[in-house]
Amino acid sequence: MKEMELKTNLGTEIDFNGLAEKEIELTGMIQNLRVLAWGAFLILRTPRYTIQTVIDANNINIPPSELKVESVVKIRGIVKTAKIKDKAISPADHEIHVSHIDVISAPTLEAMPVDTTKKEMNLGLDTKFDLRPLTLRHTRERAIFRIAATICMEFGNYLDSIGFTRINSPKIVFAGAEGGANVFKLEYFERNAFLAQSPQFYKQMMVGVFGRVFEIGPVFRAEEHDTSRHLNEYISLDFEMGFIDSFYDLIQVEANLLRAIIARIAKDCAAEVALLGITLPKLEKVVTVKFSEVHEIIFNEYKKDYRNEKDLAPEEEKLISEYALKNWDTEFLFVTHYPTVKRPFYAMEDPENPEETLSFDLLFRGMEITTGGQRLHLLDTYLTKMKKLGMDPEAFESYLQAFRYGMPPHGGLGLGLERLTAMFCGLANIKEASLFPRDQKRLTP
Amino acid sequence: MKEMELKTNLGTEIDFNGLAEKEIELTGMIQNLRVLAWGAFLILRTPRYTIQTVIDANNINIPPSELKVESVVKIRGIVKTAKIKDKAISPADHEIHVSHIDVISAPTLEAMPVDTTKKEMNLGLDTKFDLRPLTLRHTRERAIFRIAATICMEFGNYLDSIGFTRINSPKIVFAGAEGGANVFKLEYFERNAFLAQSPQFYKQMMVGVFGRVFEIGPVFRAEEHDTSRHLNEYISLDFEMGFIDSFYDLIQVEANLLRAIIARIAKDCAAEVALLGITLPKLEKVVTVKFSEVHEIIFNEYKKDYRNEKDLAPEEEKLISEYALKNWDTEFLFVTHYPTVKRPFYAMEDPENPEETLSFDLLFRGMEITTGGQRLHLLDTYLTKMKKLGMDPEAFESYLQAFRYGMPPHGGLGLGLERLTAMFCGLANIKEASLFPRDQKRLTP
Repeated sequence: MKEMELKTNLGTEIDFNGLAEKEIELTGMIQNLRVLAWGAFLILRTPRYTIQTVIDANNINIPPSELKVESVVKIRGIVKTAKIKDKAISPADHEIHVSHIDVISAPTLEAMPVDTTKKEMNLGLDTKFDLRPLTLRHTRERAIFRIAATICMEFGNYLDSIGFTRINSPKIVFAGAEGGANVFKLEYFERNAFLAQSPQFYKQMMVGVFGRVFEIGPVFRAEEHDTSRHLNEYISLDFEMGFIDSFYDLIQVEANLLRAIIARIAKDCAAEVALLGITLPKLEKVVTVKFSEVHEIIFNEYKKDYRNEKDLAPEEEKLISEYALKNWDTEFLFVTHYPTVKRPFYAMEDPENPEETLSFDLLFRGMEITTGGQRLHLLDTYLTKMKKLGMDPEAFESYLQAFRYGMPPHGGLGLGLERLTAMFCGLANIKEASLFPRDQKRLTP
Repeated sequence: MKEMELKTNLGTEIDFNGLAEKEIELTGMIQNLRVLAWGAFLILRTPRYTIQTVIDANNINIPPSELKVESVVKIRGIVKTAKIKDKAISPADHEIHVSHIDVISAPTLEAMPVDTTKKEMNLGLDTKFDLRPLTLRHTRERAIFRIAATICMEFGNYLDSIGFTRINSPKIVFAGAEGGANVFKLEYFERNAFLAQSPQFYKQMMVGVFGRVFEIGPVFRAEEHDTSRHLNEYISLDFEMGFIDSFYDLIQVEANLLRAIIARIAKDCAAEVALLGITLPKLEKVVTVKFSEVHEIIFNEYKKDYRNEKDLAPEEEKLISEYALKNWDTEFLFVTHYPTVKRPFYAMEDPENPEETLSFDLLFRGMEITTGGQRLHLLDTYLTKMKKLGMDPEAFESYLQAFRYGMPPHGGLGLGLERLTAMFCGLANIKEASLFPRDQKRLTP
C-alpha cells in the first residue's frame, strides 16, 4: 500500500502575463521548425497553445538541425514579450528563448507523408481523412475541433443553466424514430435491432420526467446519398422542452442558445477564429418566415418555381439565406410551418391548417442546421395519426405509455454539430467538421 | 416574414427567497395529491423542484377530487414559508397556497399501472424497466438521474478547466479496440462493421493533436453474461492525457476529478442526496495497492486463496474495499500493476517487471469503476507486442500512423457512468442507473 498526497496544480494553461524574463519549462510537440544560420524558430504545440520559441545555435545542447517536426520535447527557456504576426501562433505576445531541449520521443521516419507545417495543406478530402491522425495536427484542422468542442460544451452548459437536465438515451433501439429505410441493422444476440436515428422517442418520454432535457450523442443514418451535407454518423445536439405555449418558445431557446455559443467561441477561441479567418455571426433578433412564403419569394425574386414541392431544395435554402441577409439583415432564418406530409407522425399539425405543422427548420448561411417543432402530446391524437399513416400503435406501446399517463405540451429540436461547426468555420463539406467521418465508403481510420 | 425580439428570461428555476406572501403562477405535473375534508395537498413536479401546494376546497375553481396524479396543471397562488419534513419535497421551506388551477392535459386512463406516489415503489426490475416512462416519474428514480446528469456535466467541466479538449469519436468502427468476442456486428452498406467497445484507439490518436482529450459517449459490449455489474450499452467517461511522467499522473487527475464531482453533487443535488439517504464519500488522499498485494491480503486476512488468478474476483474487490476502508480509511482504492496477460496490447509493461503493466483499476465501495493505465507510445514497442500476440499490424495501420510520426508518453482511463452513479446512490444493480438499460433480453422501451 502506498499513500500519496493529492496534487492540486493539474492544469496545462500557462498565463504568460507576469512571466516575462522568467525561466520556465514546457513540454509539447514540435509543430514547426525553421532552421536558420543563427539558430532556429521552433513552434511548440501544447494542449491549448502553439508557442513560438527561439533557439540560438551557439547556446543550446542539441544542434537545431537534429530536431524533427512532431518530436516530443521538453524545453527550458526565458519568456520574452514579442509581437508575432503569424496567426498560427498563439499567444502572439510572448515567445520563449530556449536554453535547453530534451527530446522525449521522436518520429520513427524522417518525413511525414503530408506536410503539416505549411500554411495550407491543400489535400484532397480522401487523403486528408486517410491520414487523419496526422492531418489533424495541422493548426487549422486543430482549430476547427477546438471550436466544435466549445460548441458542445456551451450547448450543455447553457441549457443546464436554464433548467434542462442532461440525459443519455440508448443507441441500440427496437424501432427507428424517423421512419424510412435509412436505418442500420444490427445483430443483437438472437434478435434484430437498429441503431438510433435520433433520440426522439426517448427525449419526449423524458419530458414527462424532467420537463426539460437535452442530449449530446451520436446518431446513425444509413443514407445512400453521399453529399457534402451528409454523414452516416454524426453528433446530434438535442433538446426537448415541456410546458411550452407554442413552438415559438423553442425558437426563442434556440436563438438564445446560439447567442451563448457564439459569445463563448468569441471569448475562448479568439486565436482559432483569427487563424481560420472566420467572421462570427450576430444573432440579435428572431426572424421567421413560413415555408410557403419561401417558395413564393424564390419564385418572385429568382424566377425558380418550386411551389409544388413539399420540401425546400438545397438551392432554395441557399437563395432564401442570401435574400434574408440582404433584406432582413440576418444570417439565421427560421423557416416555419413545413407541410404535414413531410414531417414525422409525432409532429403537431397547425389547428388553423392541418396541412401544415407547427414546426421549423433553422437555416444558417444557406444550410439547414436544425429541424424542430411542437409534438403531439395527447394519446388520442397519436392513435388517430398513426392509424391514418397505417402504423401499428402496438409496435410503439412503450413510447405511447408516456402519453397515456399525462404529458405536457412540448417540443424540441436537433442541431447537427458538424453542420453548425462547418458553417461557423466556412468549410465546404461537413465531413471536414467530423474528426473521423463515416460515409458509404469510409470506415477508417 | 415575422420579426421577434429575443426573450431573455428562459429559465425555470424559481428563487422562492423574497417571494413569500407574493402571488406566482407555475406550471408542472401533479406528482402527488392527497385529498382531505378541507381541501388537498398537491405536490407539483417542475423541471428542478417538487413543490408542496395547498388547496382550500372552499376557495378553488375545481374540486380537488376531480384532479388526477400526472395531470399537467398551471396553478396560481401565494407563496408561504413552511417547514416541510417530507424529503421528497424540495424546496422544503416554502409552499404555495393555491387560488386557481388550470388543467392543461390529463392522463387518458384513471389509474397508472404503478403507483408513483408511494414512498417506495417496491417493483421488480423487469416491471420497473418495462414501465420506464412512468416509473422514472417517481421522485427517487428522478433523483438518481439528476445525480447522473451532474456527474456527466462536472466530468466535462472539470477536465475542460485543466486543459482537456472534448472529442467525439465514431461508434461505427472497423475493429474492436478491446479485442475478444464481445463486439456487436453491423451491416454497413455492403460491408461488415462493428460497434465501438471503447474510444481507445481514437482518444490515443487525439493525444497527438490536443495533448489532453476527453469523451462522454456510449460504448457497446456484447457480453453474454447478465449480471448486476454489466450493461450491453453504457456511457463511458473517458480521458487520455499526454506528457505524463508516470501513470500516477492519471491517478492524480482522476482523484481530483472525483473530488470535483463529489463537491458538485453536494452543492447542486443536496435535495436528491437527502431524499436517497446517500452519504457522499470523501477523497482526501490517494491510496494505491499493487494487484499482487491484494491477493496476499485476501489470503492472509480472509483465508481465500486467489494467488494464482490473473484478475481480481468480484469477491476480492468487495473484501479489499472493506479492508481498505477499515485499515486505510478510504472508500477509493487504486489497484495497480495488473498482470500483462490480462491487459490489452497497448498497455505499457513495467520495465522493472514485464509481467506487470503500469496500469490500474479504481475500486469504489467494492465495485471496479475505472480501468486505466499508461499506453505504449513508440511504434517499435507496438510492433513487437503485436507480433508476440499474433496480431496483424496491417489491420491497425491507421491507428499505428499516430505512433509512426511521434507521440508523447501518455495514458488514460474509462469511468463507467452507470457504475459510478449506482455506487454513489447505493443501487444494488447498475441497470438501475441506466435510463433505458440494454441487456441480452431487453431492447425496449
